[in-house]
Amino acid sequence: MPYSIGLDYGTNSVRALIIDVKDGRELGVAVYEYESGTNGIILDPSDHNVARQNPADYLKGIEVTVTAAISDAQKAKPDFDAHEIIGIGIDTTGSTPLAVNEEGTPLALTDEFKDNPNAMAWLWKDHTSFAEASEITELAKKEHPEYLAKCGGIYSSEWFFSKLLHCLRVDEAVFDAAFSWVEYCDWLPAVLAGDTNPLTLKRSVCAAGHKAMFSKEWGGLPAKDFLAKLDPKLGDLRDRLYSEAYAVDTEAGKLCSEWATKLGLKEGIPIAVGAFDAHLGAVGSGIGDGTMVKIMGTSCCDMVVGDLATKLSDIPGICGIVEGSVLPGFYGLEAGQSAVGDLYNWFVDSIEPGGAQAGSHVSLTRKAKELKPGESGLIYLDWNNGNRTILVDQRLTGLLIGQTLHTKPYEIYRALVEATAFGALSIINRFEEYGVSIDDIVVCGGIAEKNSMVMQIFADITNRQMKVSSSSQTCALGAAIAASVVAGSENGGYDSCTEAQKNICFVKDTVYKPIAENVVVYEKLFRLYMQLHDGFGVKGSSCDMSNVMKDLLEIKDQANA
Amino acid sequence: MPYSIGLDYGTNSVRALIIDVKDGRELGVAVYEYESGTNGIILDPSDHNVARQNPADYLKGIEVTVTAAISDAQKAKPDFDAHEIIGIGIDTTGSTPLAVNEEGTPLALTDEFKDNPNAMAWLWKDHTSFAEASEITELAKKEHPEYLAKCGGIYSSEWFFSKLLHCLRVDEAVFDAAFSWVEYCDWLPAVLAGDTNPLTLKRSVCAAGHKAMFSKEWGGLPAKDFLAKLDPKLGDLRDRLYSEAYAVDTEAGKLCSEWATKLGLKEGIPIAVGAFDAHLGAVGSGIGDGTMVKIMGTSCCDMVVGDLATKLSDIPGICGIVEGSVLPGFYGLEAGQSAVGDLYNWFVDSIEPGGAQAGSHVSLTRKAKELKPGESGLIYLDWNNGNRTILVDQRLTGLLIGQTLHTKPYEIYRALVEATAFGALSIINRFEEYGVSIDDIVVCGGIAEKNSMVMQIFADITNRQMKVSSSSQTCALGAAIAASVVAGSENGGYDSCTEAQKNICFVKDTVYKPIAENVVVYEKLFRLYMQLHDGFGVKGSSCDMSNVMKDLLEIKDQANA
Repeated sequence: MPYSIGLDYGTNSVRALIIDVKDGRELGVAVYEYESGTNGIILDPSDHNVARQNPADYLKGIEVTVTAAISDAQKAKPDFDAHEIIGIGIDTTGSTPLAVNEEGTPLALTDEFKDNPNAMAWLWKDHTSFAEASEITELAKKEHPEYLAKCGGIYSSEWFFSKLLHCLRVDEAVFDAAFSWVEYCDWLPAVLAGDTNPLTLKRSVCAAGHKAMFSKEWGGLPAKDFLAKLDPKLGDLRDRLYSEAYAVDTEAGKLCSEWATKLGLKEGIPIAVGAFDAHLGAVGSGIGDGTMVKIMGTSCCDMVVGDLATKLSDIPGICGIVEGSVLPGFYGLEAGQSAVGDLYNWFVDSIEPGGAQAGSHVSLTRKAKELKPGESGLIYLDWNNGNRTILVDQRLTGLLIGQTLHTKPYEIYRALVEATAFGALSIINRFEEYGVSIDDIVVCGGIAEKNSMVMQIFADITNRQMKVSSSSQTCALGAAIAASVVAGSENGGYDSCTEAQKNICFVKDTVYKPIAENVVVYEKLFRLYMQLHDGFGVKGSSCDMSNVMKDLLEIKDQANA
Repeated sequence: MPYSIGLDYGTNSVRALIIDVKDGRELGVAVYEYESGTNGIILDPSDHNVARQNPADYLKGIEVTVTAAISDAQKAKPDFDAHEIIGIGIDTTGSTPLAVNEEGTPLALTDEFKDNPNAMAWLWKDHTSFAEASEITELAKKEHPEYLAKCGGIYSSEWFFSKLLHCLRVDEAVFDAAFSWVEYCDWLPAVLAGDTNPLTLKRSVCAAGHKAMFSKEWGGLPAKDFLAKLDPKLGDLRDRLYSEAYAVDTEAGKLCSEWATKLGLKEGIPIAVGAFDAHLGAVGSGIGDGTMVKIMGTSCCDMVVGDLATKLSDIPGICGIVEGSVLPGFYGLEAGQSAVGDLYNWFVDSIEPGGAQAGSHVSLTRKAKELKPGESGLIYLDWNNGNRTILVDQRLTGLLIGQTLHTKPYEIYRALVEATAFGALSIINRFEEYGVSIDDIVVCGGIAEKNSMVMQIFADITNRQMKVSSSSQTCALGAAIAASVVAGSENGGYDSCTEAQKNICFVKDTVYKPIAENVVVYEKLFRLYMQLHDGFGVKGSSCDMSNVMKDLLEIKDQANA
């Protein structure tokens, strides 16, 4: 019986999942919570923008979770043999770059820099580099607009070069000591393969294409003279980065003897090139042409793929259009919302009455789901953590409008959920305006499984059916699929991801369908949402806002009538 | 020793205060909480706009409070003799009209209508009549713009004719049964005088001028044909309303024997013409030329007076400019905010963690006052109950902008306080733009005494010293001053309110002075507040809002630097 293993590195923990390659049955799973910082994140109380991680946690996580997942599988299936695992796949958050020395060892793991947060992994949601992001955007607009065209027209503070440049500006010692920089999705497969030479390790096309302006069209990364204009040292670094990038159906290397022993796996099994969690989550959710996969957690990633045969236009505000990212053999398109679960959690944990006790998600949802669309008179702009798509602007904030002296917490809670769904619709509309149709939506992540109100609101607002992935760990499942593909059919695996998906990916029986009378009301509210969205989010969009409060009251009156 | 008594009818209770006329010493006080409805207000769960009161509570309140205040005075001063009380003054909320029969008995006190909320007093904050308010505004704009000029250009849903017309529209039986309508500040003095004939009882110029478009300039109330165009029955009613109105230094009548016996007072002492609570509160706070009195409670009334010798221009958005209202011998100008304490209470009672226990005003204030201006990055529009001045629009709602995933309840709480101060400044600026200077601000009400953070924020935002009235019951004190004036100097009282004020009205030693570095930051925030204020509140004010979130973040960054 061939098995494969997927390692899924999330924001706060890493998870290992062992599956039966034939049918995707999940045999063993284990999770390790990172030990450093607060819930695994190194923060700076004086600067909310800082979010770093200790790469030592990543390494410890491999050993802890793989061995525990094997034990778990043995409990489920007494004759389980870890030597029948035919491959390893890895996904991580990103862009989460690490400064490494010539051997590919993260500076944070050297004595000299071990306590320096700038030598740690710069977690995806680190927003310290917003000024550098603007600078890169401005320069690219002027000199190389094509660099931005594939990533939505605006370079983000969450991305690779913004973070490198910011490091150079604030901590030149770290930048100077860095021989190269790697995404940790590039680094971890190389670690398992026993060779982390940064000049030769296989880089992920997800990270390269979506976050580092990499494209075959201009021969790889942005030109040296472009980077040098941002800073000469950044120009110099380019020669120590990379000129090729690979999809997850490529082998990154073979499991080295040291790690094989440590993990109890067979030496020499293939390791897939790494990818971002959302990308492999999309694979694990069965993504294909016309299907959007939403990975809904603290934030939300929206993944879409496009046929390579179709010439896709560049789409403003979309984080990337990259050949071979997401699903090998397709264009991968990525969009997302900076705060979804985080927005709901903020309200429950920080704002409303009784905290986790009296006013939990469960109790708020119980009351919120009794409300009719429009009944609260509220609209929220879901920008407490900025807007990733379609405005690509971290320097935006939340907005609540329509409250009266009678407004209740559960009404605000519902408005937050609706806001995230309106944001989702703004993304879908943007895709469709540029010729990428979204017929089908599959959602994965805890919210999809736990909160039927959220799913129904998304169905009503997007006016599309919402399906739920049958796996509750689709990222790890996608990584295990990649593992089965690099193993290949000759070893009991598959020859392509799409072939693997047919046997492994399913949706649950419950499908959330739009309710016609809700759709009608939400169309009106969405127009007001977009009026606020454009008014506050788009420079130069002068607009009369004096209708907003009155329209909301009118919709509220109608809902109450 | 001459004494006088003031009766102050508030939103939830009535208070009687006995003072020593010579020096204002407060000898006896008693409060009666209205028994009907919820905290004295008859509500309709299906319509938040409804707010009515039972006039039976008003009557019971006289007897309970006056007799209890006398007992209280006797405790304080064993030789106190209630027969040395030389006059009675009364203030009430308003516009709070009552439908009365030919004898002046409220329909609510007749068997036929006793359970009908439309036959009750239509409390000032009843907002059911917003459509009628627009209708009156539109007609007046077209045919008699002068009617609106003195009351800010917009007729409010809180006012007399809006309520009468709405009653006519929704409950014609009540309207038809009403011989006339009286404000309860007109009715209660007549009750004590033993003659409530609606054709002869002395009407208050406060109510007439500020809420019923009454002016000597056009011979009293709006013309019959104007009212008839709204509805022929409203036109007919005009003959059964009034053509004269009086200031509080006028005698409404003399205490009749029945009530003298009931209350233990001397028969025949004069009763002052009634006035609105805020107007007599301003008198009790020592209002004079150049001084704004803010009566800060659940809502806030801003009172200003102007010299009769100066020709005042009409001021858009100001609730009224009426000769003899507020302080006899001056123009009385009234403005206000629909929710101040109510806004803070909404947050504490309904929204933030722990309700009255964990997150009381006290604990939120403790943390909120540690914040620097601008540090939270938040701005609030204080319109949860509409905007009374300067927009005169009940159909506006609250707005919160600038929140992130790190926003805390005490930051929102401070933003609510700042919002009410920004609203206050918008009113002061409006007065000054039209030539009425505000040099001095005296605040009265519980908030002024209890919350020094609120006072300091108001000082910093308005860039004016905030003084606090030494009496904690300035409305009742003002009513007692009116009582002493109708008694006259020949009976141990005074010949004018200003003369009485000199001996009776003081401010506390603590004065809140603007702090220069806060003033600078708040000037920036006020510009953003006004951008949102005009953008959402003024029709046709097209504006680019895309700077707002970014400017707030910049001010926040500077505050944190």
